[in-house]
Amino acid sequence: MNDYTPSKDDKFSFGLWTVGWQGVDVFGTAVRPAMDPVHAVEKLAELGAAAVTFHDDDVVPDDGTRDQVLERFKKSLADTGMGVEMMTTNLFAHPVFKDGGLTANDRQVRRYALAKVLRNVDLAAELGATTYVLWGGREGAESGGSKDVRAALDRYKESMDILCAYVREQGYDIRFAIEPKPNEPRGDILLPSIGHAIAFINDLADPELVGINPEVGHEEMAGLNYAHGIAQALWHGKLYHIDLNGQHGPRFDQDLRFGAGNLRGAFWTVDALQGSGTYPAYEGHIHFDYKPPRTEDEEGVWETAKACMRNYLILRDKVRAFRADPEVAEALAAARVAELSEPTLGEGESLDELRNATFDREEPAARGLGFEKLDQLAMEHLLGVR
Amino acid sequence: MNDYTPSKDDKFSFGLWTVGWQGVDVFGTAVRPAMDPVHAVEKLAELGAAAVTFHDDDVVPDDGTRDQVLERFKKSLADTGMGVEMMTTNLFAHPVFKDGGLTANDRQVRRYALAKVLRNVDLAAELGATTYVLWGGREGAESGGSKDVRAALDRYKESMDILCAYVREQGYDIRFAIEPKPNEPRGDILLPSIGHAIAFINDLADPELVGINPEVGHEEMAGLNYAHGIAQALWHGKLYHIDLNGQHGPRFDQDLRFGAGNLRGAFWTVDALQGSGTYPAYEGHIHFDYKPPRTEDEEGVWETAKACMRNYLILRDKVRAFRADPEVAEALAAARVAELSEPTLGEGESLDELRNATFDREEPAARGLGFEKLDQLAMEHLLGVR
Amino acid sequence: MNDYTPSKDDKFSFGLWTVGWQGVDVFGTAVRPAMDPVHAVEKLAELGAAAVTFHDDDVVPDDGTRDQVLERFKKSLADTGMGVEMMTTNLFAHPVFKDGGLTANDRQVRRYALAKVLRNVDLAAELGATTYVLWGGREGAESGGSKDVRAALDRYKESMDILCAYVREQGYDIRFAIEPKPNEPRGDILLPSIGHAIAFINDLADPELVGINPEVGHEEMAGLNYAHGIAQALWHGKLYHIDLNGQHGPRFDQDLRFGAGNLRGAFWTVDALQGSGTYPAYEGHIHFDYKPPRTEDEEGVWETAKACMRNYLILRDKVRAFRADPEVAEALAAARVAELSEPTLGEGESLDELRNATFDREEPAARGLGFEKLDQLAMEHLLGVR
Amino acid sequence: MNDYTPSKDDKFSFGLWTVGWQGVDVFGTAVRPAMDPVHAVEKLAELGAAAVTFHDDDVVPDDGTRDQVLERFKKSLADTGMGVEMMTTNLFAHPVFKDGGLTANDRQVRRYALAKVLRNVDLAAELGATTYVLWGGREGAESGGSKDVRAALDRYKESMDILCAYVREQGYDIRFAIEPKPNEPRGDILLPSIGHAIAFINDLADPELVGINPEVGHEEMAGLNYAHGIAQALWHGKLYHIDLNGQHGPRFDQDLRFGAGNLRGAFWTVDALQGSGTYPAYEGHIHFDYKPPRTEDEEGVWETAKACMRNYLILRDKVRAFRADPEVAEALAAARVAELSEPTLGEGESLDELRNATFDREEPAARGLGFEKLDQLAMEHLLGVR
Repeated sequence: MNDYTPSKDDKFSFGLWTVGWQGVDVFGTAVRPAMDPVHAVEKLAELGAAAVTFHDDDVVPDDGTRDQVLERFKKSLADTGMGVEMMTTNLFAHPVFKDGGLTANDRQVRRYALAKVLRNVDLAAELGATTYVLWGGREGAESGGSKDVRAALDRYKESMDILCAYVREQGYDIRFAIEPKPNEPRGDILLPSIGHAIAFINDLADPELVGINPEVGHEEMAGLNYAHGIAQALWHGKLYHIDLNGQHGPRFDQDLRFGAGNLRGAFWTVDALQGSGTYPAYEGHIHFDYKPPRTEDEEGVWETAKACMRNYLILRDKVRAFRADPEVAEALAAARVAELSEPTLGEGESLDELRNATFDREEPAARGLGFEKLDQLAMEHLLGVR
Repeated sequence: MNDYTPSKDDKFSFGLWTVGWQGVDVFGTAVRPAMDPVHAVEKLAELGAAAVTFHDDDVVPDDGTRDQVLERFKKSLADTGMGVEMMTTNLFAHPVFKDGGLTANDRQVRRYALAKVLRNVDLAAELGATTYVLWGGREGAESGGSKDVRAALDRYKESMDILCAYVREQGYDIRFAIEPKPNEPRGDILLPSIGHAIAFINDLADPELVGINPEVGHEEMAGLNYAHGIAQALWHGKLYHIDLNGQHGPRFDQDLRFGAGNLRGAFWTVDALQGSGTYPAYEGHIHFDYKPPRTEDEEGVWETAKACMRNYLILRDKVRAFRADPEVAEALAAARVAELSEPTLGEGESLDELRNATFDREEPAARGLGFEKLDQLAMEHLLGVR
Repeated sequence: MNDYTPSKDDKFSFGLWTVGWQGVDVFGTAVRPAMDPVHAVEKLAELGAAAVTFHDDDVVPDDGTRDQVLERFKKSLADTGMGVEMMTTNLFAHPVFKDGGLTANDRQVRRYALAKVLRNVDLAAELGATTYVLWGGREGAESGGSKDVRAALDRYKESMDILCAYVREQGYDIRFAIEPKPNEPRGDILLPSIGHAIAFINDLADPELVGINPEVGHEEMAGLNYAHGIAQALWHGKLYHIDLNGQHGPRFDQDLRFGAGNLRGAFWTVDALQGSGTYPAYEGHIHFDYKPPRTEDEEGVWETAKACMRNYLILRDKVRAFRADPEVAEALAAARVAELSEPTLGEGESLDELRNATFDREEPAARGLGFEKLDQLAMEHLLGVR
Repeated sequence: MNDYTPSKDDKFSFGLWTVGWQGVDVFGTAVRPAMDPVHAVEKLAELGAAAVTFHDDDVVPDDGTRDQVLERFKKSLADTGMGVEMMTTNLFAHPVFKDGGLTANDRQVRRYALAKVLRNVDLAAELGATTYVLWGGREGAESGGSKDVRAALDRYKESMDILCAYVREQGYDIRFAIEPKPNEPRGDILLPSIGHAIAFINDLADPELVGINPEVGHEEMAGLNYAHGIAQALWHGKLYHIDLNGQHGPRFDQDLRFGAGNLRGAFWTVDALQGSGTYPAYEGHIHFDYKPPRTEDEEGVWETAKACMRNYLILRDKVRAFRADPEVAEALAAARVAELSEPTLGEGESLDELRNATFDREEPAARGLGFEKLDQLAMEHLLGVR
């Protein structure tokens, strides 16, 4: 039996804030001590990860010790062969961001937020990160009158346009990825879903430089199908990064380890990332953004990190077996899944003839599509009983 | 006291399928007899509506009686001065559409669906409708393997591109509006939210010809803020039409009369539609898409139709009073709402200086924004106690 | 490898309305022809089920043909060795029940509903059913003023008390089971969850005769944990029957085949039904209440019926393997799961001493509980990789 | 116009943790300084509240300064005439409670939790509180194997039985109130709804001493109708206390000020609390449990406290006007609302006759119930346009 041990080729990466989460929530205080980022890098390397990601505040204090801290951090990366594949800015923890960063009503706050991002884009470039994520967790509102949404989108666009121009000017090999979320910590967050973020990106000055970083749980908090969401993002060429984790539908942001929560959804997520004959696969890092529950000590934290990778590898195996199974091929054919890739109006076919044709509705209405048989085959691959 | 009686200038319109709903649901049979569309037109005219909308199947049978039925229907429009402002195609009721219309796996079904739309676009043009809605309620899936989402989006785009080209060729004064919905009747529907639909539209061959028709309940079924959604749609210039109704959050599609469900949300919806100093208002018809509950007989049906319009007029009055209230102006200023319209980087300001500036985080962090006071003022306008 | 073929000893049962569902929903008409109940009995017997269940209207028309229909139905039961383990009344499909049955505002409707139940309790007894289910799908309201909830509970209780007395008088071997649901088809349904139903039952005249029939999807529509729910029901001795199916959280009632939807939840559901060293197992029939999707023809219907039973057997195997795994036993011990069965105040221990004792909070606060390791072990049993 | 100024007769009370909330959440740090409980008492008194409530940890440190702190606190109560109507224990903030208090797997933790409650019940008695609330926010699980739900309920019952016996022995004038919540901070919390809690209470040794303290937002997080919930609780005689606030359906626990969120729900909540001709009103304190958003400074905090009370008074006025309106009386009669209070089987009526009677289903099936007209009347009272 496969032992599902990850290697750097699997391109797994972890946010330092994930294994480093101390467990502070609305109702309770820290359950674990602060984790030294260097320790996190070393342990994640040991477990088989290829890279880490972080918010500025996770690693580098904005004070006189910054350079020294950074040197030590870089050394740990060099020693372990770990990369920094993505970086992001903390625009949510400090009270100055209570009404948002790039879309705060207060112009001084927006200026501070933008400066904070700019300075850390330089750091990202220095560390070789090629993706820079923006999660606007505080960009939003609790009440209707307090935020002019159209003005907020103007300001969001202004900042993104400035950031893109800056990256072009500096010649950085960096793309931005916006991370949507419907709510929490704000009552309603701007750009609440994969769709809203891609729609917004299309109106930027330099849309090529901006894609999305969708998180499993964020879409599922809105009851949306994550695999469908990333399929649409891939269709738009906008899946620049991903955040894998687990969630139990509309409720607070659970940030469970990957596989926990909606397991069947995780299977189809991995399937969507693998691509297919017709459509290219996602090529970026497999990035986990989750929170080890407060019931765990540090040993439990590493169990969850291992499990995220292991579950991904298990599911990848199962997805491949599913796609290679001749009985599945038969069921896919019966379900006419590939027929959807044929144009509705074939080359040389006349629209006018189509418009005026007589169709027999009754035959296709009566014919079953065999979707349940196909889904049960997937289920049995997932359960390991085929 | 204002009597909130609608007039044609208020541009209210109703789907014929709303007042005509017979009450069939998954668990029960019809509670009301079929309603003659001509009777619906006459009654809605009498109540003060300006226009009706319909699916082909609501009015015209696809058989030999079609012309005769149509003549009688047109006469009723002429007699009452009612317009047909929007039309749409029923691609969901017949079993042939059980796996969708424009994105059905079965190519014959897609061809029939496309032909059905084309034929009814002609009818829409004939009747003077300037908006043609596509609600893809059956475009989706219950299980992950049965639908290749990227192929489905290819086919959706193919159909939309054909339809746009057709409308251009025919010289029709018609724009398309896609109506998003997250689920029901399919397990997951393609283009599940306002954002997903706008993102999709941007990749069409002729995006100018396509916008969206968002429905209150459909966004709220995903826990999304409808007023935020239409504000983003207006920002993109994509709010081509609206469907007003009521809903109680994530659950089955309730289609309550406008105002029922999330009343505070309805207030901010009307506010968003009114526009503001900076941003233009929505100029289209105020269209209701709801279902009179099964507990009502025909008299109750007309009560709900009246109430939809009346609630809109009441809320419009309150929104205007809120926006005109000097104490509100003061609270908005204290909340710095207008400050969000100022560029973050002013003309002539240096990005480099911004990047390197020292910001005092503590003062804005400590300062309250007074959002709750502002929201309470809105609440009291809504409650009629100011 | 186990072939997971069901036998009568597995005590699987199906509602005739499940495989017989024709696919009528709010947006579409029937996709499958009506199914002869006798055919359903024969096919289900062939597939390995032990029993069927039904609403009166599923089988017996309320007219002159009743006796003849019934004879033929009974013969099919005898021929196949199938039982009727549960029966129920349709108090929701006919328009007379649009405001409910036993709690309709209209007294005549309540009287008709009660009479309909009484007559069918006789039939249930005649057919040997030992459980009589009441699903009050139309007992509820869309608006606050239309239903006096306390009066409705008075009437619900009145009917239940009458029914219990009737069963005692007749000497029937029948217990009642109330099936809770939060909403759909009514805006809000009375007795919306497992808890509300058990609370209500406790105030009946003859609580011993009444338990619950909880459905997976109904609890998950409220975001509640079904396995927790049935564990509490078992704790109260009130799990008289079950309805297994699948659902994707808060949205319309999906009635997916068992296993689809929340698969990890299904694993823990089967685990809860199996009981444990300390707590007795559920001993009733394993009853499926689901709807084969509209995409299926009759062949697809039987695929789903087979899959419900097969998934149950697969999960039961996995649950047993999980509970027998020595590494799991170790993880359970580390997680102190069994320690929860020890009284907090042991026999002979003094409350006063407990009250005044000094506790070291820091040691248990720092100690990890290893819950994630345990959960990952369960996950790997589920995935078949251990 | 009524100025909606509260007085002590209105019996408003506030948790000290509400106005004292510093704004720590999963994603951010404190935005407001700690508030001196004495200051909170003084300000709330000034605004018109009658009483405060608190968790032990909100007021009294568990160290040598306890007595001194307590003296100062009691003096503030005496000076302002404020009461302590309810008290509760913090069994969730300290990391020792990460797996719960009374149902933690670790027996030592359970013992500490029980002792903490016992000691504070004494304090509650000393301060004259007559309600003691238990919110088991950490009593639950994130994963299926880590918690034996039936054992947990055994332990919960054990603790409640001990506490009830203790209160009886001490002769305290105190009743307990369990506060249900479906999830957050735990993945799933035990006793997740009003119903589950009442069901549980019925199996305690001394059920008379225990009722519930339902919170608006907690029920609405499960999509449940709060007004229905408290009506059922009143029907069982179990509504010992309430927590009023606001929420936007299934998502994180928003704890908005009362009236914000589901405003129409708030109207019916106040209506349910007022009782009716047939059913007694809720007589306890009107208690607010909410969190002033992080956007507010202390001035904003007092705005929210004022607004909670003001909104209650406004809604109470509107409910009374609604109930006194003759047109409403007419609509209620047409909707046959009072008819639901008539027994279905009248005194002296024969069950046998009922059972065998012929009912005309068609007349009541065709008759409309006028619920929408009635609901629109309520809406217009709420909006202040009648």
